[in-house]
Amino acid sequence: MTLSREVAVIGIGQTKFGEIWHKSFREIGIEAGLRAIQDAGIESSKVDSIYIGNMSAGLFLDQEHVASMIAEEVGLTKDSVPATRVEAADASGGLAFRQAILDISSGMSDIVVVGGAEKMSDVTSQIATYFTAAGADQSWESLFGATIPSLYALMARKHMHDFGTTREQLGLVSVKNHRNGSLNPDAQFQKEITLEQVLKAGPVSTPLGVFDCAPISDGAAAIVLAELDLARELCTNPIKVSGTGQGSDSLSIANRTELTGLKATRAASKRAYEMAGINPSEISVAEVHDSCTIGEIMAIEDLGFFEKGDGGPATERGDTSLEGIISINTSGGLKARGHPLGATGIAQINEIVLQLRGMAGKRQVKDPLYGLAQNVGGTGGTVIVHILEAI
Amino acid sequence: MTLSREVAVIGIGQTKFGEIWHKSFREIGIEAGLRAIQDAGIESSKVDSIYIGNMSAGLFLDQEHVASMIAEEVGLTKDSVPATRVEAADASGGLAFRQAILDISSGMSDIVVVGGAEKMSDVTSQIATYFTAAGADQSWESLFGATIPSLYALMARKHMHDFGTTREQLGLVSVKNHRNGSLNPDAQFQKEITLEQVLKAGPVSTPLGVFDCAPISDGAAAIVLAELDLARELCTNPIKVSGTGQGSDSLSIANRTELTGLKATRAASKRAYEMAGINPSEISVAEVHDSCTIGEIMAIEDLGFFEKGDGGPATERGDTSLEGIISINTSGGLKARGHPLGATGIAQINEIVLQLRGMAGKRQVKDPLYGLAQNVGGTGGTVIVHILEAI
Repeated sequence: MTLSREVAVIGIGQTKFGEIWHKSFREIGIEAGLRAIQDAGIESSKVDSIYIGNMSAGLFLDQEHVASMIAEEVGLTKDSVPATRVEAADASGGLAFRQAILDISSGMSDIVVVGGAEKMSDVTSQIATYFTAAGADQSWESLFGATIPSLYALMARKHMHDFGTTREQLGLVSVKNHRNGSLNPDAQFQKEITLEQVLKAGPVSTPLGVFDCAPISDGAAAIVLAELDLARELCTNPIKVSGTGQGSDSLSIANRTELTGLKATRAASKRAYEMAGINPSEISVAEVHDSCTIGEIMAIEDLGFFEKGDGGPATERGDTSLEGIISINTSGGLKARGHPLGATGIAQINEIVLQLRGMAGKRQVKDPLYGLAQNVGGTGGTVIVHILEAI
Repeated sequence: MTLSREVAVIGIGQTKFGEIWHKSFREIGIEAGLRAIQDAGIESSKVDSIYIGNMSAGLFLDQEHVASMIAEEVGLTKDSVPATRVEAADASGGLAFRQAILDISSGMSDIVVVGGAEKMSDVTSQIATYFTAAGADQSWESLFGATIPSLYALMARKHMHDFGTTREQLGLVSVKNHRNGSLNPDAQFQKEITLEQVLKAGPVSTPLGVFDCAPISDGAAAIVLAELDLARELCTNPIKVSGTGQGSDSLSIANRTELTGLKATRAASKRAYEMAGINPSEISVAEVHDSCTIGEIMAIEDLGFFEKGDGGPATERGDTSLEGIISINTSGGLKARGHPLGATGIAQINEIVLQLRGMAGKRQVKDPLYGLAQNVGGTGGTVIVHILEAI
């Protein structure tokens, strides 16, 4: 399948991620949206439609229908600009980005603003953990007390059993991502940590501890997209969307035939690589979904960066560091940048855009040509993969 | 704006609407989806992607990420078929239909299944009313006790004040829709009612009574869409999507400049009429969003079927009946067919397809060429309008 019209990113913006108690959902949504519009240097009256990725303002804030709310706050309801919310658990941001691409490609819009936002800290951590598990299967998993980390813990154990992945290798994912986060002024955690700290941290669901799991976060991120020819006119450094892929799998892990990888990642990335016409080896920098450390190890295998079973050793060898063969989660990843569910997929794209623009500051990778973002919903019921290209 | 590729409906299916206590959300979703696939006469392996319109499985069932769940149950995760949930309160169904059109038009898919589903009866009526108000503005309206009917009641009072619309005219909307519903075997209520019954019914929010407000419902509906040329190959009676329009407005009615009509309806329908290249007078049959009776009166004015202020008198004259100038809500509308929030927009399209196919049984309108569906989110923060054409 090919797109009827091609698309590029012309502006990005986001809030700092963290516990943002002094701002509301709508305030962080506006902040990110206006920054992206400002970065694109366009009048907001040029915006043809908006998309919002949000997992559950319903559960967290008793508020559905958030796309119209954000459109109003940014001043876009004046012209009744179409505003659409999409949801696929914590893949909602990546999904919103994809829908915005399809909207432009369909011919309905020339310029689209796409945002992702989540406000998780208005409830207790325990309740936030329960709400997040609404991205797993309620009838078969969450109702019986399973949380997202406990389901990933099962996958981690099986990966360790089948491939000899070690507890230390899992921990080194977190050490690397905290190091990267220390170089990102928008990250929730900007402190380096040691492997010893990871191993000594309290357990969440064995073998995963506190430092293996992404935090509870508030935050919003936004992007302005334009049809490719228009993007070249409007902006000196457009970043082209070369590939988009989406895949699904059963919501509950009980219904899957494997536990050591995500079928939906392989399907989504195959589609994205085919559209972009490139191989995994051509990717210089990637943001992957490390909601738990095992998630990153499975991702770098399923995306074809390393052989199955080599994700742990590759991490230990430093192949995924800023100086490695392929730099993974230069932003700090979900673990250190923070993981406001619906915002994550958009923040991933923003990091790739910064890297491809050569504007990632202290965490800049040398001359990247292609970057990839992989966003997972729940434990893999949905996976979205995008490939971006410096042109 | 024009679509890069044109689209047609090739199959429809739905469950009966009502209080479906013996079936789960996923069961009604499968039932509707499989019926639509069967009606289209295609193999499910031909489906390129699916869209689900759902307002709040999060609040009603503690379950987000429902698109992947339904995809799994219909057997589509086997090939990792992309599955996307969209939400705009009770306009979620219409919005899902629009996103499916954009997907095909973008070139990413040739055949798409789009469904709408809601399971509301697993909680009490009071809680369902509160959850439904998550489609209004939580911070400015719902938190203070406003419900969707109470906000529509304010609009009804103002409409009565400004245009002389009478309590009886509101009631006659419900009488007509119950009469139509009595001819629809899938409707939640298949009994005729009298104006006297409407006027004597208990108040919900004055001037609106029990018979002025759509019920709490469970139900699902689904559609198979295909690229137009492919649709002609696959099916003998494809129904073309001639126009699609989406509009937004402020979520809270306090922030609007008018109370007697919906700006988003006018914007969405203007876009749809322009795309279809037709005038309102060319529409023979329309499904409009009568979540409260005043909603239908405002809709038939905002859609250009009648002059502003003539919606009430037109209803009284019988102009909107099955035998009238333009037949409105031949299915029974939200009031009598039932209103499972996310399913409503899809059920509206299904009714228009039945009418354009000439297969609407006892409620068939004579030789319609164009039909229109108008789906409203909350009190008008989002409105989606589609125009379908018999070809």
